Amino acid sequence: MTQAKAYAARGADQALAPFTFERRTPGDEDVVIDIKYCGICHSDIHTARNEWSNTVYPVVPGHEITGIVRSVGAKVSRFKEGDRVGVGCFVDSCVGCATRDLDREHYMPGLVQTYNTVAPGADLPTYGGYSDHIVVKEGYVLSIPDNLALDAAAPLLCAGITLYSPLKHWKVGPGTKVAILGMGGLGHMGVKLAAAMGAEVTVLSQTLSKKADGLKMGASHYYATNDPATFEALQGAFDLIICTVSAEIDWNLYLALLKPEATFVLVGAPEKPVPVSAFAIIMGRRGLAGSMIGSIKETQEMLDFCGTHGIVSEIELTSIQKLESAYERVIKSDVRYRFVIDMASLG
Amino acid sequence: MTQAKAYAARGADQALAPFTFERRTPGDEDVVIDIKYCGICHSDIHTARNEWSNTVYPVVPGHEITGIVRSVGAKVSRFKEGDRVGVGCFVDSCVGCATRDLDREHYMPGLVQTYNTVAPGADLPTYGGYSDHIVVKEGYVLSIPDNLALDAAAPLLCAGITLYSPLKHWKVGPGTKVAILGMGGLGHMGVKLAAAMGAEVTVLSQTLSKKADGLKMGASHYYATNDPATFEALQGAFDLIICTVSAEIDWNLYLALLKPEATFVLVGAPEKPVPVSAFAIIMGRRGLAGSMIGSIKETQEMLDFCGTHGIVSEIELTSIQKLESAYERVIKSDVRYRFVIDMASLG
Repeated sequence: MTQAKAYAARGADQALAPFTFERRTPGDEDVVIDIKYCGICHSDIHTARNEWSNTVYPVVPGHEITGIVRSVGAKVSRFKEGDRVGVGCFVDSCVGCATRDLDREHYMPGLVQTYNTVAPGADLPTYGGYSDHIVVKEGYVLSIPDNLALDAAAPLLCAGITLYSPLKHWKVGPGTKVAILGMGGLGHMGVKLAAAMGAEVTVLSQTLSKKADGLKMGASHYYATNDPATFEALQGAFDLIICTVSAEIDWNLYLALLKPEATFVLVGAPEKPVPVSAFAIIMGRRGLAGSMIGSIKETQEMLDFCGTHGIVSEIELTSIQKLESAYERVIKSDVRYRFVIDMASLG
Repeated sequence: MTQAKAYAARGADQALAPFTFERRTPGDEDVVIDIKYCGICHSDIHTARNEWSNTVYPVVPGHEITGIVRSVGAKVSRFKEGDRVGVGCFVDSCVGCATRDLDREHYMPGLVQTYNTVAPGADLPTYGGYSDHIVVKEGYVLSIPDNLALDAAAPLLCAGITLYSPLKHWKVGPGTKVAILGMGGLGHMGVKLAAAMGAEVTVLSQTLSKKADGLKMGASHYYATNDPATFEALQGAFDLIICTVSAEIDWNLYLALLKPEATFVLVGAPEKPVPVSAFAIIMGRRGLAGSMIGSIKETQEMLDFCGTHGIVSEIELTSIQKLESAYERVIKSDVRYRFVIDMASLG
């Protein structure tokens, strides 16, 4: 066992505070990682505050982790001390399962999330990246390309793959018209990734306040959704719309912006069900689908793609002592575009 | 102009009654068809009774038409007098359109439906198949394979293509598990077609009352949706579910029956929007999509497929004088499985 320093939430209405716990004794297949940076994902806040009613306290959030390999087990072949690595949203999956599917492991019941999941055979839930180190099986450790800064690369591990996976699944590339709905931590990654894939990218944001940023990141067009004219102008315009907002919006309005046989993909999730008109999808054989992160294989592919294209997240570094104010600003969408905790602040 | 005998509705609350009108003078590219049979589609009832608030009276419904070619225009090359032919849901599309897409013409704004649509340049709406003959441009006339009876083939023109198109689009074949939700005029065609494509077919029907029929038509499994155990047993079971029912059901229950990355396709449409849970589609990257008939090219492909596999609809022949009682029985789902009007009864 190795003692870890961390910040944890101990209850839904308690601020995160210093917490010490034991990581498991590293095994032959484990990689021990000194965590340098950890992005703040909205899921961290939902979990810290038990907004999904599934939190086991104390909880150490954080699943956008980058760091340096401290040591490796005897059977680890792909990593060595000093390597620049990352850990994303899960640290194990149903490897022993007869129907194991490497491309869909993240949709399988055996998934062990990086925090707040009790793994089979374990006594304690997993603890995430708001800590000084982590012990992860080799198969769930990612390589960070040398040209990507570890701080700005951290959000790729969740926000990046969350956008990359649907863009690939729905075959975005030169000639496709993609709309990214919402210009936040997820949305801005979608703009950069879709543009790098060669698509013609349109941002649909509540206002035009981030228009200059959007165009700089690779968008060709930028529309405000608070202007009804936007919905007139863009009827039937897109091959794919990726919705990154979790506010309750009228999906039917956006379904009308799809070309025939095109798809509206949710990666942000409003809590309450949204009424969908059957006619909005029957006419034009349109689709409404969801998507959630990606496999380890695809996450590495995404990181390599980002290395090739020099893509990282736009970030604001913060210290772990300022978590609560960062959380409040995330909730107000008052960050351009992702907070990353400098873990040196843990002391 | 040629005088046509027909049955028409003259108002939302009036029974259909004899009606005489002029078909257009056949042009060089037109085929004149003596109508022998016409299926009764639920859309006919919705339109006759103005339930979609878009009916122009008098309306002559009917878009599941089979008959014999009476004569052809000078430029018609694919048909001759005496040929066995069909006409489906539309009789023109945006042929002159720069973005014409032969595979998606039925989703384009230039679509002229077989009845109740005013074509560009025309004074009157189109009149459908509840009549003795029809004049149709060659490009919108289908060939009926010789081995298919004209009466039982009529429903292929709408019900058949409505199921065939999504089965093909979502790549159903050997090794795929397909569920057909609803065992009526549409659903029973889905069972026959999916089974002929080599899929493993499951029927999900309210009760088991039509189980013997379903198994005979090619289903391997048959479940009652009024039994909660069905939803336990079939979690994550299907590559594709096609929903043929227009009653308001909880789509989220059925989304849970999909495998990861599988799709629930609506071809029946409840009038009111249905609340959809984002989590039901984000988890597993599941999709909810619609589908509507098919192109002329795909409709001919479907008819040829039915010829090869000897597939027709299960029908009950009726006379045009009994339309109202047939309509009432369709509404009560009291027909196995499609009414077809014997047009000889028009006299």
